[in-house]
Amino acid sequence: MSATTTSTPGSTRRLTAKGEATRARIVDAASSLVFAHGVTRTGVEDIQREAGVSASQLYHYFGDKQTLMRAVIAHQTEAVLAAQRPELDSLDTFEALLRWRDRLVTLQRSRHCVGGCPIGSIAAEVADEDPQARADLVAGFEQWEAPLRSGLATMRDRGLLRPDTDTDRLALALLAALQGGLLLTQTRRTTVPLEAALDSMIELIRAYAA
Amino acid sequence: MSATTTSTPGSTRRLTAKGEATRARIVDAASSLVFAHGVTRTGVEDIQREAGVSASQLYHYFGDKQTLMRAVIAHQTEAVLAAQRPELDSLDTFEALLRWRDRLVTLQRSRHCVGGCPIGSIAAEVADEDPQARADLVAGFEQWEAPLRSGLATMRDRGLLRPDTDTDRLALALLAALQGGLLLTQTRRTTVPLEAALDSMIELIRAYAA
Repeated sequence: MSATTTSTPGSTRRLTAKGEATRARIVDAASSLVFAHGVTRTGVEDIQREAGVSASQLYHYFGDKQTLMRAVIAHQTEAVLAAQRPELDSLDTFEALLRWRDRLVTLQRSRHCVGGCPIGSIAAEVADEDPQARADLVAGFEQWEAPLRSGLATMRDRGLLRPDTDTDRLALALLAALQGGLLLTQTRRTTVPLEAALDSMIELIRAYAA
Repeated sequence: MSATTTSTPGSTRRLTAKGEATRARIVDAASSLVFAHGVTRTGVEDIQREAGVSASQLYHYFGDKQTLMRAVIAHQTEAVLAAQRPELDSLDTFEALLRWRDRLVTLQRSRHCVGGCPIGSIAAEVADEDPQARADLVAGFEQWEAPLRSGLATMRDRGLLRPDTDTDRLALALLAALQGGLLLTQTRRTTVPLEAALDSMIELIRAYAA
């Protein structure tokens, strides 16, 4: 395989296939530890041990923990979106919204409601501490909100929702309900809050049915 | 003033008035630091310095950081509820819901959208790490949800909402929308997500108007 470049943080230099694999192993390990314990509790040494790399290898790829955490945010954003596919990419019918809702609830149930949202929990921890991480999290949430917006806009354009429906506002409220539902689900160890939050927002969207 | 007892964590022994004041100073200092930096980043030495107490004084009142954090959760729960009064205690008309919504938005604006929810952010950080803290956070959220439930139930009982309205589910969804709105508001540094989340849920509640 030829050397590749990516635009994700900490990998602006060209990497060999082996280098890409090592870099990915570090990001995977760091993401797992951050999901389980949070950013602050995850030490660089823990990540080295989990990834099976030396301090100099980790430094070679990421320079500092902050740069690695940016890569973790990018990785977890991708993972969060991937876990909602294929539904997330075509939320353009009421049936699709319900399938997406079921996927989210099932995922939390399979995790025994532990961990909350992989990027929401990072946001709660670092948004006020690290302006660059906050900017990355804003971009991550935007990647999540965009398919919600476009799905609802498609429903409106197809005549499933009334022409005057403010689909952008509903999409943002849906993401907020999802985030709050995940946090309460993590705290209470039951999917009831997530279900109540998503079902209520979907019910509101239904109230705009044409 | 005579000695008092309280049932909050770390103060099961009788304290003199001076002891109560010292204890309260420690909890205030710890709460401010946790709100600004999170639980993990707040060291016991930071709390001692902020409160102006010695290590032995802090140990005398709280024994360990975990016990002190339980007192912080209790303190922040009280503060969160107090900041929503008087509206929170009588959310039994649509006008009251809107006044409460405005109070929440104004509060975030006055904080420049920094900090998020004082107990939601602790929940995101420690729910998976500390079972006792998680139980305290469940109780804290319940204290918040209860007045939402009772306000909406009163609206139903007075005939403002249809008799078949599931007010318990709406109250839970409202708390979830609020939590998610606060997290996105903290991340994006604008109250737009909080407003979208609360306005959408209030709009859904209006759809149940009798």
